[in-house]
Amino acid sequence: MIVVIKKNQDHKQVENLTNWITSLGLGIHMSEGENTTIIGLVGDTSKVDIDLIRSLDIVESVNRIQEPYKNANRKFHPADTIVNVSGHEFGEKHFQIIAGPCSVESEEQVVAIAHAVKAAGATILRGGAFKPRTSPYAFQGLRESGLDLLRIAKAETGMPICTEIMSEKYIDAFYDVDIFQVGARNMQNFELLKELGKLRKPILLKRGLAATIEEWLMSAEYIMANGNMDVILCERGIRTFEPYTRNTLDLSAIPILKERTHLPVIVDPSHASGLSRLVKPMSLASVGAGADGLIIEVHNDPAHALCDGAQSLRPEQFVDVVKSIDVMLPLVNKARD
Amino acid sequence: MIVVIKKNQDHKQVENLTNWITSLGLGIHMSEGENTTIIGLVGDTSKVDIDLIRSLDIVESVNRIQEPYKNANRKFHPADTIVNVSGHEFGEKHFQIIAGPCSVESEEQVVAIAHAVKAAGATILRGGAFKPRTSPYAFQGLRESGLDLLRIAKAETGMPICTEIMSEKYIDAFYDVDIFQVGARNMQNFELLKELGKLRKPILLKRGLAATIEEWLMSAEYIMANGNMDVILCERGIRTFEPYTRNTLDLSAIPILKERTHLPVIVDPSHASGLSRLVKPMSLASVGAGADGLIIEVHNDPAHALCDGAQSLRPEQFVDVVKSIDVMLPLVNKARD
Amino acid sequence: MIVVIKKNQDHKQVENLTNWITSLGLGIHMSEGENTTIIGLVGDTSKVDIDLIRSLDIVESVNRIQEPYKNANRKFHPADTIVNVSGHEFGEKHFQIIAGPCSVESEEQVVAIAHAVKAAGATILRGGAFKPRTSPYAFQGLRESGLDLLRIAKAETGMPICTEIMSEKYIDAFYDVDIFQVGARNMQNFELLKELGKLRKPILLKRGLAATIEEWLMSAEYIMANGNMDVILCERGIRTFEPYTRNTLDLSAIPILKERTHLPVIVDPSHASGLSRLVKPMSLASVGAGADGLIIEVHNDPAHALCDGAQSLRPEQFVDVVKSIDVMLPLVNKARD
Amino acid sequence: MIVVIKKNQDHKQVENLTNWITSLGLGIHMSEGENTTIIGLVGDTSKVDIDLIRSLDIVESVNRIQEPYKNANRKFHPADTIVNVSGHEFGEKHFQIIAGPCSVESEEQVVAIAHAVKAAGATILRGGAFKPRTSPYAFQGLRESGLDLLRIAKAETGMPICTEIMSEKYIDAFYDVDIFQVGARNMQNFELLKELGKLRKPILLKRGLAATIEEWLMSAEYIMANGNMDVILCERGIRTFEPYTRNTLDLSAIPILKERTHLPVIVDPSHASGLSRLVKPMSLASVGAGADGLIIEVHNDPAHALCDGAQSLRPEQFVDVVKSIDVMLPLVNKARD
Repeated sequence: MIVVIKKNQDHKQVENLTNWITSLGLGIHMSEGENTTIIGLVGDTSKVDIDLIRSLDIVESVNRIQEPYKNANRKFHPADTIVNVSGHEFGEKHFQIIAGPCSVESEEQVVAIAHAVKAAGATILRGGAFKPRTSPYAFQGLRESGLDLLRIAKAETGMPICTEIMSEKYIDAFYDVDIFQVGARNMQNFELLKELGKLRKPILLKRGLAATIEEWLMSAEYIMANGNMDVILCERGIRTFEPYTRNTLDLSAIPILKERTHLPVIVDPSHASGLSRLVKPMSLASVGAGADGLIIEVHNDPAHALCDGAQSLRPEQFVDVVKSIDVMLPLVNKARD
Repeated sequence: MIVVIKKNQDHKQVENLTNWITSLGLGIHMSEGENTTIIGLVGDTSKVDIDLIRSLDIVESVNRIQEPYKNANRKFHPADTIVNVSGHEFGEKHFQIIAGPCSVESEEQVVAIAHAVKAAGATILRGGAFKPRTSPYAFQGLRESGLDLLRIAKAETGMPICTEIMSEKYIDAFYDVDIFQVGARNMQNFELLKELGKLRKPILLKRGLAATIEEWLMSAEYIMANGNMDVILCERGIRTFEPYTRNTLDLSAIPILKERTHLPVIVDPSHASGLSRLVKPMSLASVGAGADGLIIEVHNDPAHALCDGAQSLRPEQFVDVVKSIDVMLPLVNKARD
Repeated sequence: MIVVIKKNQDHKQVENLTNWITSLGLGIHMSEGENTTIIGLVGDTSKVDIDLIRSLDIVESVNRIQEPYKNANRKFHPADTIVNVSGHEFGEKHFQIIAGPCSVESEEQVVAIAHAVKAAGATILRGGAFKPRTSPYAFQGLRESGLDLLRIAKAETGMPICTEIMSEKYIDAFYDVDIFQVGARNMQNFELLKELGKLRKPILLKRGLAATIEEWLMSAEYIMANGNMDVILCERGIRTFEPYTRNTLDLSAIPILKERTHLPVIVDPSHASGLSRLVKPMSLASVGAGADGLIIEVHNDPAHALCDGAQSLRPEQFVDVVKSIDVMLPLVNKARD
Repeated sequence: MIVVIKKNQDHKQVENLTNWITSLGLGIHMSEGENTTIIGLVGDTSKVDIDLIRSLDIVESVNRIQEPYKNANRKFHPADTIVNVSGHEFGEKHFQIIAGPCSVESEEQVVAIAHAVKAAGATILRGGAFKPRTSPYAFQGLRESGLDLLRIAKAETGMPICTEIMSEKYIDAFYDVDIFQVGARNMQNFELLKELGKLRKPILLKRGLAATIEEWLMSAEYIMANGNMDVILCERGIRTFEPYTRNTLDLSAIPILKERTHLPVIVDPSHASGLSRLVKPMSLASVGAGADGLIIEVHNDPAHALCDGAQSLRPEQFVDVVKSIDVMLPLVNKARD
């Protein structure tokens, strides 16, 4: 970390700062120039609060040299991490497709979709039981009974299940969920992340709507610092000024993440735009960018399931997407299970 | 709500949509033009998921006419709401200053600051016990024992206390907190909001980093829909592309909110920029924009409390800010207690 | 266009508004509800200033039903436009690669790169002569003499040339440039756009850093309204809060543009991130998303050309990118010349 | 400038980099740590392209220590610059109000408004002759004949005039304009900025919609590097994700600019929101934040001038705004002429 001190500052205050830095167990390297004094911090700066130093009156600027994340950092773990979700591997040369309905609605619906997506090549079943909704008046999901329906579909098809957890108080109710999804709105729900870090279950960590890549990795770090190393990152679109799409899918985050971290990265092409007709092009784009997998919404009966029919594909469209992906995978040195 | 249907669409799909709309208890007004068919939805559309309709293939665009929030809507509640926090009123002609340390560190620290800010004109004491931190390696606050220190300061000074709650599991531990603060990162922690809606305690709801004004009001609506009408909104900066400030304080949100909602609105000038030297100008700017109050960080001993000294004012600087505010208040028809 | 009037408004002011609307040659359809009056504007609303109506005190909200762009609108021109750049076609089933150095530096450099990229499959040569630079102290390009060097490379290789124009005063100097590039910073330089609209030369219109898709199409409309229909759109990244990449490439803009407009769309994968190692993944992602071409920076001698070596590929890396693209093109029903 | 080199890099490439740096006339300070090599650049780094260095494969990160702007930098010019606009001073303890119609429409209109705003306290007359419009179909201003009308108003009232220039080709036509306004869309029209730098006329430089404060100062630097030191900065809102206001006024930019530069800073409260009812609160907020002046739209006849009546105040509302400002000015140590 490099701290630049303003010109002509009170020596006492600079000394206070350097004393505080050394009290944190860090070394100091000072270089005094004509216009500025530069303090280099030597040692592990991951616990140093950069905003705090930046806010001091004597400080002109602060820059990190070292990343604040450790467990998630590729520097200290050069090989790709492979996360095993009940027999299906994410990372390195593996490519997995998670698919299923937006919301779990009935046994008939979820089982039918599960069979359809499995036949098409999906290896893990997704389905929303607890639904985070902007409006308190909107349908909030079937909640606990939705979990029961996912269990039935799992028993019927043998597919592991992936569903979203919105509060640490539901952890027990999720006992046989195979991969816990943390939604964009909870990416910095630190109390939840800490508890998920104590589990030995894979976590699918979606990027927050306005989260930088560094903050996202710090949220992964919350889980990993508590001992759970099985984190899969999921890009799902960030908030920008563009109104034609609900969010802007940030695909350049994928190669950037591949440099910074050893964790697997997948993409949700359904939610970013909110438009089902963008799922195919954005799925192919995600594969091209180097994603380790996709999570795609599929619904069964467009005539009756309006709610479902929104950003979801019909099974035959999903089959077509998977076929196109299969043509591309050798280009990026990956293969589906 | 106005739904525009694309040209030459399948009649069956349009019928599915109109049937679904009427099944929600809404009326329909169709008008067929040369290039487009327009469907007007008549009735209470607050439960209708606009993203869902937008995502249908037959739909070109959807626009809300009615706001999706009701309890928070000034249309249905034209008079300003006054929220009473243990004897201190927010809203209408009242102006309140909440002040105190960023983090509660010791009895000596919090009691000294409480006395100082009370003497200067603050009516409510703030102090962080549970701290949301981007890094798992950063200090997470004194937590439950921090609450105990706030209780001591309350007993010593008679000031009501305001502190942040990060999970619904701590509600019992907050039994004698006078106003529960919901931080920016938890603005859409819906499980937390629902539980706070069941309390009869004032809630200070900070705006999320990337939350639109409408989403912010919908989060207030979560609390109010569960019966708790005592919500105070707090603008604290939004995320933009500008790196010189940590966040961009959105002061035009204040007059906009004053039109849209009857709830009180205050501003946190300390956190948006992260720079204590911006607190005074941004406090005066907030008063000019029409805020109902401010929440300001104040620390006691700059020589020793580096951590504290960050975005916080010293007591004598705080006195100066309050004096300048007092000159301005008559201009905006407000007065301090 | 749908204008919603606030409750209980002065009839005189509403009448002023409706009179003004009819004076623009538009019809009016009024519907009075319990809480709101809705005015529908019937006819061609492309000349109506939506911001102006929105800003009236009596108006609650305004929404466009009709897009404000006409010549660029796919509704009125359903077939893909094919833009012919000196024999090379953009649009529909064609895929073109424009390649060359960031800045033109010497005859030797630009001719060598031109030969290399032509051999690898590029059909058009790019090269910066006039360089828009954030700093007045940075190299501003070889300017007119840079154009001369591009002419030499064109004569040597037979490749059409593409270079950026920064002011209408240089139009004469660009007499034999085959495609005029308008940079992101000039996307709303309307005086320049109007003059380019009078030419009969293809225009490569880059998206502004903070331009919505609609504004971008309106800038194309400026060119087309003046008679020049040969516009190619180029996505090059938008400004967001993410600091790890210089800009965020918005690839979902491609399928959205394909719905909205008949114009060809290409992608610049070099500039968005500013990192040459992202060029390959983002090129493949662009093809997957449906782009009609790419514009890629290639440099020749990494040991000496530091400036050039920045976001540019070496020729052998460029060959590898083109080979991978060729595998993907059949998937998206496209082929290179 | 601090360049961090990745671990285990090719010595040849690092040497190429250091050779290139020294060839720019800069010194080098290397420090090799366990995980990284850090290169400090010593000397004037304002000509160094930071993006170029960042994009090199061997580079992990680059951070500026020195700002890239010099003439605009308060470090090298500690005293406030006072810009004299035909007798009216901007900067230091002065506060000026520029007011007038959005668009110049007729002699009667502009002269009437000029008299009204002068009587209320405005010292400079604004009025749009050349109008930058998103749509080619919208009214583009009276252009040259609009300038003639401004001249008449200037002769009638003695007020200096301020109007927007959209291309360097109009500089001669602007011969007696007192202050040239550069609009947000042209903030990085470098060919225009260079020519304005050769004039000896004050320039009002509006912030681009997505411009960082540093880029804005670099645009001021373009003008100043060419010899024209009379630049006034004007904050007018930046683009964010919030749709309730057209743009988000960034008032914290004012105190930040006051630290970074010696140039005067004014605010345009009319355009950011596009809502005339926000002009008063945002004007007071601007004064509180430390602005050196305001530029406000005022129209004359609301019943007939719909176009004008948009984001503009009526004269009596303008009088009220000026009166409130006068109460506040002593608080910020400023006074109107």
